[in-house]
Amino acid sequence: MRVVQLQTPVSPVVEDNLKHLGALLENLQGRGADLVCLGEMFACPYDTANFPRYAEPEGGGTWQALSRLAKEYGIYLSAGSLPEVGEGGKSYNTAYVFDREGRQIAKHRKVHLFDVDIQGGQRFKESETLSAGDQLTVFDTEFGRMGLAICFDMRFPELVRRMTEEGAKLILAPAAFNLTTGPAHWELMFRSRAVDNQCFVVATSVARDESFSYVAWGHSLVADPWGRVLSELGAEPGMAVTDIDLAYADEIRRQLPLLSARRRDLY
Amino acid sequence: MRVVQLQTPVSPVVEDNLKHLGALLENLQGRGADLVCLGEMFACPYDTANFPRYAEPEGGGTWQALSRLAKEYGIYLSAGSLPEVGEGGKSYNTAYVFDREGRQIAKHRKVHLFDVDIQGGQRFKESETLSAGDQLTVFDTEFGRMGLAICFDMRFPELVRRMTEEGAKLILAPAAFNLTTGPAHWELMFRSRAVDNQCFVVATSVARDESFSYVAWGHSLVADPWGRVLSELGAEPGMAVTDIDLAYADEIRRQLPLLSARRRDLY
Repeated sequence: MRVVQLQTPVSPVVEDNLKHLGALLENLQGRGADLVCLGEMFACPYDTANFPRYAEPEGGGTWQALSRLAKEYGIYLSAGSLPEVGEGGKSYNTAYVFDREGRQIAKHRKVHLFDVDIQGGQRFKESETLSAGDQLTVFDTEFGRMGLAICFDMRFPELVRRMTEEGAKLILAPAAFNLTTGPAHWELMFRSRAVDNQCFVVATSVARDESFSYVAWGHSLVADPWGRVLSELGAEPGMAVTDIDLAYADEIRRQLPLLSARRRDLY
Repeated sequence: MRVVQLQTPVSPVVEDNLKHLGALLENLQGRGADLVCLGEMFACPYDTANFPRYAEPEGGGTWQALSRLAKEYGIYLSAGSLPEVGEGGKSYNTAYVFDREGRQIAKHRKVHLFDVDIQGGQRFKESETLSAGDQLTVFDTEFGRMGLAICFDMRFPELVRRMTEEGAKLILAPAAFNLTTGPAHWELMFRSRAVDNQCFVVATSVARDESFSYVAWGHSLVADPWGRVLSELGAEPGMAVTDIDLAYADEIRRQLPLLSARRRDLY
């Protein structure tokens, strides 16, 4: 299974982001990509004021363009996340996954909103304009079952554990850490989730843009069930191609039986 | 609060280990140690055959010697772990903590036994001779509440989370990783538990001895609630002195509110 992460720059013009994505997918043709992954809020500068402004309903214009691209190139497309306007006009940070036919096979609304105020570092309050989702998300592909979570969701070991219990062997995490939490926790957290749950973690960020109010750390990576980093980008726009075999998760689960050794009587 | 980790060599002669410990504590006098920590099975070579052979009941000779040392030097003593013989002749991997008066204030029987068979790497099966404990352990000190777990217990995010929920701001983890899991996971796992639970983790190993059947990784470390490694030893016998302030855990919990942001409705 060939995973391609596209760590794209973000333009304030949605259509430009989609055109750029189309060009990248065109260039990828013939390279055997099975699953293409984008970053959190890849089509809208990450900013609380922007979320309601850019929000579209599920099935809206951007959603349709992404579905078409998945079908046109015959790929699974983990289309990062987009601001979604839902019932009652509420806005969500929402991740969609499309299959090779362009059908939506997964939708995850971020369930943990990013509200932090780090001394001398990052401040942000997603809850100013966003509402939180209320379910965890796993879905099936021809390669096996996968989980889907967005950035701050991954901070919570319980959520990743639940996706693992539901059968996920790979977790897709569109994300965007910042210059405070990125160097401190980005790699540590994703590697640790992979080791604890003996699964692959594919964390995809947008590229860094110092002119934005929220500056992304970048560093899209893939961690394997032993905690190895199979690929990691820097801060710049870039592409990472990683071949993975989900059977390796079963192998590690057999050799180091963490999941079966849990003491369900104690927690 | 001054934490001193003693990464000691292990002699097959219990009394020699206690004498060595006494000498180290004697040398520490006047250096303001509040809490002294030892490694997992610091008085018995780590080997399934040894556990029942070395096992003593709670309150036995080794326990008494440790209690006396804690009182004599006026320290909290996290006395690594010892093989314990309990009810019905069962053996346990048991950690004791003594206060400055030599009173036992915590006892933890390892609840997750280390049964692994890693391809081309470590094999071990604690359950051949050990039984598992059946509770999690937190306890109070003049510095605040702490948790106590042993090595493989720390593999399970759920257990550390439960100790955190019970109020622990520092987790003591006598441990002994090996040359397979040590380089892969030792630092990653302890740092990650510290970050996820916004607590201090004090992981103390015995020194490496290549002549033993189980070769310890060493690398005793202290991780802070932001995931920084405040001190880390190598493989050799050694001592690490780390000054920590548990109030920093509160500070981090306020700035990056992970514990309060959990979605208890979802997991």
